Amino acid sequence: MTPASERLYLFDTTLRDGAQTTGVDFSLDDKVKIAVLLDDLGLDYVEGGYPGANPTDTALFGQKRGLAARFTAFGMTKRAGRSAANDPGVAALLDAEADAICFVAKSWDYHVHVALGCTLEENLEGIRDSVEAARARGREVLLDCEHFFDGFKANRDYALACARAAYEAGARWVVLCDTNGGTLPEEIEAIVSDVTAVVPGDHLGIHAHNDTEQAVANSLAAVRAGARQIQGTLNGLGERCGNANLTSLIPTLLLKPGFADRFSIGVSREKLAHLTKASRQLDELLNRPPNRHAPYVGASAFATKAGIHASAVLKEPETYEHVPPETVGNRRQVLVSEQAGKSNVLAELERVGLTVAKDDPRILRILDEVKERESLGYAYEGADASFFLLAKRVMGEVPAFFEVERFKVNVERRHNAIGDLVTFSEATVKVRVGAETLISAAEGNGPVNALDAALRKDLGKYQRFIEDLELIDFRVRILNGGTGAVTRVLIESRDGDGETWTTVGVSANIIDASFQALTDSITYKLVKDGAGV
Amino acid sequence: MTPASERLYLFDTTLRDGAQTTGVDFSLDDKVKIAVLLDDLGLDYVEGGYPGANPTDTALFGQKRGLAARFTAFGMTKRAGRSAANDPGVAALLDAEADAICFVAKSWDYHVHVALGCTLEENLEGIRDSVEAARARGREVLLDCEHFFDGFKANRDYALACARAAYEAGARWVVLCDTNGGTLPEEIEAIVSDVTAVVPGDHLGIHAHNDTEQAVANSLAAVRAGARQIQGTLNGLGERCGNANLTSLIPTLLLKPGFADRFSIGVSREKLAHLTKASRQLDELLNRPPNRHAPYVGASAFATKAGIHASAVLKEPETYEHVPPETVGNRRQVLVSEQAGKSNVLAELERVGLTVAKDDPRILRILDEVKERESLGYAYEGADASFFLLAKRVMGEVPAFFEVERFKVNVERRHNAIGDLVTFSEATVKVRVGAETLISAAEGNGPVNALDAALRKDLGKYQRFIEDLELIDFRVRILNGGTGAVTRVLIESRDGDGETWTTVGVSANIIDASFQALTDSITYKLVKDGAGV
Repeated sequence: MTPASERLYLFDTTLRDGAQTTGVDFSLDDKVKIAVLLDDLGLDYVEGGYPGANPTDTALFGQKRGLAARFTAFGMTKRAGRSAANDPGVAALLDAEADAICFVAKSWDYHVHVALGCTLEENLEGIRDSVEAARARGREVLLDCEHFFDGFKANRDYALACARAAYEAGARWVVLCDTNGGTLPEEIEAIVSDVTAVVPGDHLGIHAHNDTEQAVANSLAAVRAGARQIQGTLNGLGERCGNANLTSLIPTLLLKPGFADRFSIGVSREKLAHLTKASRQLDELLNRPPNRHAPYVGASAFATKAGIHASAVLKEPETYEHVPPETVGNRRQVLVSEQAGKSNVLAELERVGLTVAKDDPRILRILDEVKERESLGYAYEGADASFFLLAKRVMGEVPAFFEVERFKVNVERRHNAIGDLVTFSEATVKVRVGAETLISAAEGNGPVNALDAALRKDLGKYQRFIEDLELIDFRVRILNGGTGAVTRVLIESRDGDGETWTTVGVSANIIDASFQALTDSITYKLVKDGAGV
Repeated sequence: MTPASERLYLFDTTLRDGAQTTGVDFSLDDKVKIAVLLDDLGLDYVEGGYPGANPTDTALFGQKRGLAARFTAFGMTKRAGRSAANDPGVAALLDAEADAICFVAKSWDYHVHVALGCTLEENLEGIRDSVEAARARGREVLLDCEHFFDGFKANRDYALACARAAYEAGARWVVLCDTNGGTLPEEIEAIVSDVTAVVPGDHLGIHAHNDTEQAVANSLAAVRAGARQIQGTLNGLGERCGNANLTSLIPTLLLKPGFADRFSIGVSREKLAHLTKASRQLDELLNRPPNRHAPYVGASAFATKAGIHASAVLKEPETYEHVPPETVGNRRQVLVSEQAGKSNVLAELERVGLTVAKDDPRILRILDEVKERESLGYAYEGADASFFLLAKRVMGEVPAFFEVERFKVNVERRHNAIGDLVTFSEATVKVRVGAETLISAAEGNGPVNALDAALRKDLGKYQRFIEDLELIDFRVRILNGGTGAVTRVLIESRDGDGETWTTVGVSANIIDASFQALTDSITYKLVKDGAGV
C-alpha cells in the first residue's frame, strides 16, 4: 500500500441535519454528550445547530466547548436589503462560540425567485457579504449550496456563480448539497468534476441525502471527482430518508481499496474499533432500537444463518467477510438454528463466553435441546442470554436460585367511581427462595408489567442483585396464526453496568411466555453476577 | 423522452436469500402469500427457496403455482464425482414444480479448493452438467457465480471460465454475485464491463449485498456496465446487511434519468403506485416495524419537519421532492398541513367502498380523527375494517349494537391435582344488548383467547350474525420499547363467506388493545351483514 497522503475531511451534521429526523428531539444535554462522542471518534467538524433560532442551540453555542473538532454554527446568509452587520440571523452566528460558521444559501435560480423573492445578484451579494463578515470575525467559513445539483441542471452558470462567489470571498469550503436526495452517483460525479474547474477540489464538500438509498455512493462519487470534504451523520440520521451515513463511510474510507490507499482521515484505525460502540451509544441516547442490519456496525452485519455457508464460514471466516469484524469493533455471529450443526453450537458457546472442549459429549446434548426447543417455537438467534442458560443448564451449572410456586394475573375493565371505563391489571406471585416462601402483589399498566413488578418485588436474599435490572424492550410474535397459535416473547433487559441481554419464552399463553422470559432474565442476571445459592 | 426500449429483468430472492435475514422465519403460508404479492407487482422472477433442503420449501415446490412470474428453484450444482442424474440435490431441483432453476456455483478458485475440496476443472464440469441437465428437463436456467468479484480479483481467468461454462452450456442468465457485499460500485462497473466480453450483457445478472450500504448503487453500476438482470429483495431483506433493495431500485429504474428513458421493466407505472403498500404488507406478514426512513416507501420519505423548508415545501412541493410521492403510492407529510391528507382520505374511503362527495365537510373530520388516533399509535394501513368503522362512526352510521359493561380476565399458573405446573386462563364479560344484560364466562389457551370466547358466547339477538366469525390471525407490536410502551394489536377475522378483515386496537395494556380489536371485528361483521338495531 502506498502511503495515504491526501487528506479527506469529515463534517458531522448529526446535531443539525440529524435533528430533522422524524421522532428525534435532542435536549441540550443530548447535544453535549453527542458532540463529545463525535469528537472522540476523530471527526474534523461537528455542526451543533442554529444559534439564535431556538433556545437549545442558543444555549449550546453560549459556552466554549473543549473539543478537538471544529465546532460549527449553521444559519442562513444575510437577507437582501440589509448589510450582514444588520442581519439579526447573521449576527447570532457571528456571536456564537464556534470555530467555524456554515452558511446555507440558495444556488438554484428558481428557488432564489420563489423562496427568497430577491434577485439573483442580491443572493450572490448575500453570499459574499456573509462569508466576508464571518472571515472578519476570525471564523473559518463554509457555504452550503442548497439544491446545488438541481440548480446546476436548471441553470449551470448561476449554480457555479454561487460556488465561485463563496470561494472568492474566502470560504474554506464550498459544500455541494443534494438537498432533496434524488441525484444519482454518475450525475454527482460528472457535476462535481465540472465544478472543480471553478473551485479547487480541496475546497469542495459533498452533502448527500439517502432518498434513492445512494447517499454513501453519492458521497464517494464526489470524492472520486475531487471533493475533499464529506458531510454526513452518525447512523445516517436526518430528514426523510436520512443523510449520508458516516458509520458506513468511515470504515469504507479506512479499509477499502481506492480510498484507504489514497486518503487519510481524522479517524484513526484505533478509533475505528470504537465505531460499533459509538453507533450503539447514539441509539441508546435517542432510545431507538439499533438497526441490526446496519453495514459494519449492525448486530447482524457479520452474522451467518445456518445454511449453505455456515460450515464454510467456520472453517475460514476471513474469506467470507469483506472486512474483519473486530476492525470496526463488531463481532462475528454464526446463528444457532434448526439447520445448525455441532460446529455452530461450539462457535456460539464460545461467543457467549462458555469454553467447552470440541469432543465434549454435552455439545450434542445442547444441540438436541436447541433443536427440540426450536421445534416448539423458541428462537435463540436473538436471545443470547436464554441460549447461555440453556447450555449452562445442560452442563448442570445453573443453580435453582428460586422457584415460582404459582402466579395469578387479573385484568379487569369496569366503570370507576366517576363512571369512566378503566382497566386495572394486578398480579400475585408466590416464590420459594431456599427455605423462605415469599408472596408479592403488584399493579401494572398491563398484565406483563404487573407480573414483572410482582416477580421482582421481593426475591429475598437475591433482591440486591436485581435492584438495577430494568426491562427495556418487549417483543411479541405470534407463530402460526389463528387457533393453535403459539406466542414467542423476547425481552431485553439492562442493568446498572449498561449491559443488555435478551431472553425468550414460548407458550400458547402470552402471559406464560412472558413469564418464562422474565424468569430467564432474572436468572441470567444472578448467574452473571455470581449470586451464590 | 426517447422510448424505453431495452428490457431489464428483475429477479426477486426475498423467499430465498431474504429467508436468511436474522429473525425471519417464513412459514409455507407466508411464502405463498409473499409470492403472490411479488407476482402482483410485476417482478419477472420469484425465487421460492431450496426444494429438497427443508420441508417448507419442498412442500412449496410440490405444487404448481399460477404465477405470471417465473417461479424459480435454487440449489447447488452437482458435486464432483457424480453425474447430475445421480446427485440427490440436483434431482430435487429437477423434480421441483418450477419454471426456472437457479444453480449456485463457486467461481473463486480458492473456495473451490477449500470449501468443495475438488479440482477447478471438476467445478467447471459441475456447472456444465447441471445447466445441461436442467435444460434437458425444459427449464430455464440461471447460474449464480458465488463470490464472483473476489474470485475475479484473485484469479480473473478462472472466474471468467465459470461464467463462460454456464453460458456455453445454455444458461439464460449468468449472475455475478458479490456474496460478501464488500465490492465498491466502481469495481463492479469495471469488472462487469470486462465480463461482457465473455458473456453478453443481456445474459448477465447482478446479485449485490448491502455490506457497505451500496447494494443499490452496485446494482445500478452493473446495469451501466451492461448487465440486464438485477437480483434483490423487497425491503432489502437478506443475510447480514441485506440484499439489494428492490423497493428502492424499482422506482429509480422507472423514474430517474439514465434508466427510465433507456430501459423498460416488468413493473408498470400503475403497479409502481402499489409499491408502498406491498412494502408495508411484507412487513406486516413478518411482524416487523416498517422502516419509516426507507427511500420512496417509508412513512417519513416525503416528510418535512417544521424548519427552514416546511413553508417553502407548502408553496411548491414539487421543487422540494425528488419524485412525486403518489407515483410510489406514498404521501407527502408536512406538519400542520390539512390539505396534504384530504385527498388521501378520499382515496382511502373509496378503497374501502364508501362514497363521499369531494367537498363533504365530514372528510376533514375523518382526517382529524385519523391523525389523532395515529398519534396514539393506531395504524390503519393494515386495518381496513377499523378505518371503515372510524369513517362510518364520524358519519353517524354505526349503531350501538352492544355495550360491554365490564370484563375480567384471569391467568393463573399453579400445580394441578397431579402436581404439574399448569396455566389456566378464563374471562368473564358483561354485555348489554338493547334492554338485555348478558353475562358470559369462558376458558381459553391464553387471556385473549378466553376474552374472545366469552365475548362471542352470547350476544343475544346478534348471536346468529357472528356464529360463523372466526379469528384467523393475531399480531402484536410494541411501540416505544420499555416503560411508556404502547401495544398495538391487529386481529384478522374471517366469516363463512370467506371474507377476511382486519381490525386494530391500541393501549398500554395488551388485553385492552385486544379487546378493542375484537369488538371492532364483531361490529364490522354486524354492519357488513346489515344487522338491525
